[in-house]
Amino acid sequence: MSLLVTGSIGIDTVRTPYGVSEECLGGSAIYFSMAASFFNPVRFVGVIGADCPYELSEVFAGRDVDLAGLEVRPQSKTFRWTGTYHEDMDERTTDRLELNVLAEAPPKVPVSFRDSKFVFLANTAPLLQLELLEQIREPVFVAADTMNCWIQEHTDDLKKLLKKIDCLIINEDEARLLACEQNLIKASQMILDMGPDEVVVKKGGSGSLLCSSDGEKFLLPAFPADDVKDPTGAGDSFAGGFMGYLAQKGKANFEILRTAVAYGTVTASFTINDFSLKGLTSINKSDIDDRLEALREMTRF
Amino acid sequence: MSLLVTGSIGIDTVRTPYGVSEECLGGSAIYFSMAASFFNPVRFVGVIGADCPYELSEVFAGRDVDLAGLEVRPQSKTFRWTGTYHEDMDERTTDRLELNVLAEAPPKVPVSFRDSKFVFLANTAPLLQLELLEQIREPVFVAADTMNCWIQEHTDDLKKLLKKIDCLIINEDEARLLACEQNLIKASQMILDMGPDEVVVKKGGSGSLLCSSDGEKFLLPAFPADDVKDPTGAGDSFAGGFMGYLAQKGKANFEILRTAVAYGTVTASFTINDFSLKGLTSINKSDIDDRLEALREMTRF
Repeated sequence: MSLLVTGSIGIDTVRTPYGVSEECLGGSAIYFSMAASFFNPVRFVGVIGADCPYELSEVFAGRDVDLAGLEVRPQSKTFRWTGTYHEDMDERTTDRLELNVLAEAPPKVPVSFRDSKFVFLANTAPLLQLELLEQIREPVFVAADTMNCWIQEHTDDLKKLLKKIDCLIINEDEARLLACEQNLIKASQMILDMGPDEVVVKKGGSGSLLCSSDGEKFLLPAFPADDVKDPTGAGDSFAGGFMGYLAQKGKANFEILRTAVAYGTVTASFTINDFSLKGLTSINKSDIDDRLEALREMTRF
Repeated sequence: MSLLVTGSIGIDTVRTPYGVSEECLGGSAIYFSMAASFFNPVRFVGVIGADCPYELSEVFAGRDVDLAGLEVRPQSKTFRWTGTYHEDMDERTTDRLELNVLAEAPPKVPVSFRDSKFVFLANTAPLLQLELLEQIREPVFVAADTMNCWIQEHTDDLKKLLKKIDCLIINEDEARLLACEQNLIKASQMILDMGPDEVVVKKGGSGSLLCSSDGEKFLLPAFPADDVKDPTGAGDSFAGGFMGYLAQKGKANFEILRTAVAYGTVTASFTINDFSLKGLTSINKSDIDDRLEALREMTRF
């Protein structure tokens, strides 16, 4: 079933204890699309400036990613992020952030994309997420990401958004911040009370937690990674695997959501194996399936 | 099969965000025995002073805990610990520590216990753990716990111990410290290279990881707890459920070890539901089995 993503395209410079990757392609929509395209065709909505050194049609060559929603603004500059990961790879510092084109009006959803059924609204201002979502006629399942600054400074907008989406995908610290509650199980329930039917809490190297408004819970450890080079894009790759699998199945009951979380987990585990997109571009779907089965074997009892 | 524990008996004063528990009974051997006794008879080895306000035969009344290894030293004082848990219940501060009788010679293993097959050496100086272990004739499966101060200041003794045990049960920060490696998967492998066939890494609210020298891995999330009052004793209750189940089965192949980790996890989840031993004394084995099945359901995909 159709799957649409709205999110950022960025030029990233990343330092980790394992090396430096300069001016590489990143951004939420990029990682999401690369990950989701293993499962389902992707409709891409995002905006860059004239300075972007990457040709996205080449980046996604051979993958079913429809770039009709890519807007290039000749007078603008592409979003740029420079960050450093520390020894504990679950923690990072933003060294430099240039919003550039992301500080302007968001791109429009092309008319041909407005019948999309599965929608992922990557992290941005909740008001923009709402504006983008309003352009989709009858979505079946909408998931969104958010972050600290929106939780703290755009709370009302975020709460409006939460009433319109089916699933919030959020980091554990953000979940605690949003719910004003330290206990993650209680925090998840409080987020469900704000609107969405599902909340996925990502805990980095500690796995993830899916809670449903009907009381069901699913807990999954992270795939055991002994070769983490660059965690950039892990969260958006998780969302890509998760939403890609749901769109492929065409529905999102709890049984399917469990497997979607597992696919999100293993897809993200490839992302962090290498810098930038290399972890995802060097594999195929059978590698993901093999790792899913390995994770299943390592978690059964 | 016979199960022996050597460990501490303490008088604990614990502060958590949910209340204060003063002068309650604690200590590794106490929590371990209470937890393990749901699964298998326990042989208890520990030492107290004349000041201990608790009668252990009453504490364990109705449970199959053999106190023949309890030594009461009339001239000594019982171990005391005062600690505070913070908002993140995985972190605690020791406010006051009075080793008292624990700073003296360790208790002897009674002759009637020296044929024990399953042995848990709770946290103490590795030299004492070695001394206690030498008194056991032909153990089948020996597990030990340790902590930061022994890793840092008694490294050589600890490395001797690691060559003599089958399984190290350790916190994630301690595993990193022992292996001098931040990545937990790599750290676990490095600990296995030091001697034991199995290492169990406890990650508090993030679950646990079992790694085997033959390359097998088992990952389990923590039981989702929305009612954590006092984490004291969680680690020793985990060890009690884990070792109690292994002793009940009489062997420790990887299939059995998986289930043992799961039983350790759910047993500990009851401990943290209430202060001191109340979380364990208020339940029966069927509560533990019910929670095991709930955890199985919440982790399958």
